[in-house]
Amino acid sequence: MPTETALLKADFINPFVSSSLNVLQTMARVTPKVGKAYLKESRSTWGVVSGVIGMAGNKVTGNVILSFDQPCILEIVSNMLMEQFETISADVVDAVGELTNMITGGAKTQLGELGYVFEMATPMMITGQNIELSQLSKAPVVVLPFDTSAGRFVIEASFAPAKGAE
Amino acid sequence: MPTETALLKADFINPFVSSSLNVLQTMARVTPKVGKAYLKESRSTWGVVSGVIGMAGNKVTGNVILSFDQPCILEIVSNMLMEQFETISADVVDAVGELTNMITGGAKTQLGELGYVFEMATPMMITGQNIELSQLSKAPVVVLPFDTSAGRFVIEASFAPAKGAE
Repeated sequence: MPTETALLKADFINPFVSSSLNVLQTMARVTPKVGKAYLKESRSTWGVVSGVIGMAGNKVTGNVILSFDQPCILEIVSNMLMEQFETISADVVDAVGELTNMITGGAKTQLGELGYVFEMATPMMITGQNIELSQLSKAPVVVLPFDTSAGRFVIEASFAPAKGAE
Repeated sequence: MPTETALLKADFINPFVSSSLNVLQTMARVTPKVGKAYLKESRSTWGVVSGVIGMAGNKVTGNVILSFDQPCILEIVSNMLMEQFETISADVVDAVGELTNMITGGAKTQLGELGYVFEMATPMMITGQNIELSQLSKAPVVVLPFDTSAGRFVIEASFAPAKGAE
């Protein structure tokens, strides 16, 4: 059974990093700079809009959140949809859900090659900063920051050993 | 492949109803009255505290939200933990996560007997009413209301055919 510490290791984190870089380059011609991972202390949403997805796995189960500051998501979605967005409209919120799907989907494929098999739920999107959002699981939440030329987004990943995992 | 309309039918909804009644009776000696299901129109949280869980299935995939008004959840948690709660404390929020786990877990077992097999993600809890919470999926959100002697809670279920489902 993977320990919680194992989930902080590069093997488990790298698929989320490389999938993020790949999706953003392909979909929005944005090449973020990856920052240093840290543990989340607060129980609130980090950015102004967040995509949340449940990942149910054979070894570990948890949730992944993508959370964007406003300049960052407006740059990404304006590039993706080739139209200038200046507010967090419904189209921008939906794009956050699509990005959440694509980035976690890419990570899922890479994690599968490492023996972590996941079934994915459907993304939900939460609009608003500092919304109180907490996890029932006591597993640590690892935060990966990414800086674009316009702003920052973070990926928050929290996984605990799945029930019945070996 | 199940159509969206099929997901509104009693076969799919009843497991959530019977699991809710069972869990609340067992855990909190509360027997809610079940109201008539309706389709959600808003894109906001219904109650003051909500539990969210992703359910990834062989035929359909989606999210389930339990959302409580304040008197309702304070009654339930006070009964569950045999201690009087008067505010939405961290213990109350965690109890919402536990209830989300138990109620959807019971529904999962019953749905499995109908051929709908699910892997469950981990619950997250959102505190706050009218928080903008939207689904990427265009599937309808079915709302099941439950009235207790103190107040009301709702279960919101949204499922779309899973990718690759037959």
